[in-house]
Amino acid sequence: MPHINVDENLPGIRALMAFRPETAAPMNELAEILLRDNEGLSRTDRELIGAFVSYRNDCFYCHTSHGEIACHYLGGDRALVEQVKKDYNAAPVSGKLKALLHLAGKVQVSGKAVTKEDIAEAKAAGATDRDIHDTVLIAAAFCMFNRYVDGLAANAPDDMDSYPLRAKQVAENGYGSHIYLGKQPVGS
Amino acid sequence: MPHINVDENLPGIRALMAFRPETAAPMNELAEILLRDNEGLSRTDRELIGAFVSYRNDCFYCHTSHGEIACHYLGGDRALVEQVKKDYNAAPVSGKLKALLHLAGKVQVSGKAVTKEDIAEAKAAGATDRDIHDTVLIAAAFCMFNRYVDGLAANAPDDMDSYPLRAKQVAENGYGSHIYLGKQPVGS
Repeated sequence: MPHINVDENLPGIRALMAFRPETAAPMNELAEILLRDNEGLSRTDRELIGAFVSYRNDCFYCHTSHGEIACHYLGGDRALVEQVKKDYNAAPVSGKLKALLHLAGKVQVSGKAVTKEDIAEAKAAGATDRDIHDTVLIAAAFCMFNRYVDGLAANAPDDMDSYPLRAKQVAENGYGSHIYLGKQPVGS
Repeated sequence: MPHINVDENLPGIRALMAFRPETAAPMNELAEILLRDNEGLSRTDRELIGAFVSYRNDCFYCHTSHGEIACHYLGGDRALVEQVKKDYNAAPVSGKLKALLHLAGKVQVSGKAVTKEDIAEAKAAGATDRDIHDTVLIAAAFCMFNRYVDGLAANAPDDMDSYPLRAKQVAENGYGSHIYLGKQPVGS
């Protein structure tokens, strides 16, 4: 049960965002830019990094939700998503993504855990400054989202079929507030 | 030296925000709402919570910057700010703020570290659901800001006189992007 009195019909972070729409708007805008930009890192890479950090933070709602969005982009390859969460070094992903997941794992622990060697390794694998920037900020942002969700004990749906349905909606429509507040997009 | 190629003339998070203004805008908007809202928690309380979490995350730039903003609101009582960072239980602050700092300290570790007892204690000390929401989200947001700053090794100014000057600007003008990007507010 959530720690504060929120709408029980809304799952996860969406109930918190409906409680305080003023802070929901910039959080959704940040997610929209960080997770749906297609320059440098693909949308799939971005969601995988977010799901991986959420898994390390043991945030069931976030790692399941964002894992399902990555799975949607991957045409349904849930096994790959699970492997990235649990053992990315053994997963069939690029060396660049592995280096960035390593970097994200450091940020999950602490910003200070990142070393010059971690950065050099990512650059050697082909990461640009912008890729490194976005990876650090995606990892940092999920350290916020995960703490927000679990720190207020937001409900995570038991119905596992609900996650792919929501993932499809986010993949198609993005992280606009209309989605998190349970409203239809304008014009739809 | 920062891990990516940013403007060396800008201190701390401002150099990162100038590198990627698209993500700077929602981050500044979130800070503006969370730290400058006056309902429930005062601006002083909000900055103290942010400085405390940054201190626990060992983020020098953030705990110094936000500690100085709290100090500005407190009419220059830097000793109180330092006491809140290091030993808030012994500081002359309200029981409600102590309970919320305790809660913020849990969130700094993990969202899952928050217990029903922590929430009950905050409510018994007079915290509303909105106070609890804002405290958890301020703590979570600083876990993002701190990781962003240190994960990219942003420069923190050595000149300690620069922090009170910047604190006065933020206290007077807020967290608009114009401040972080080093531009003058429109109309000034």
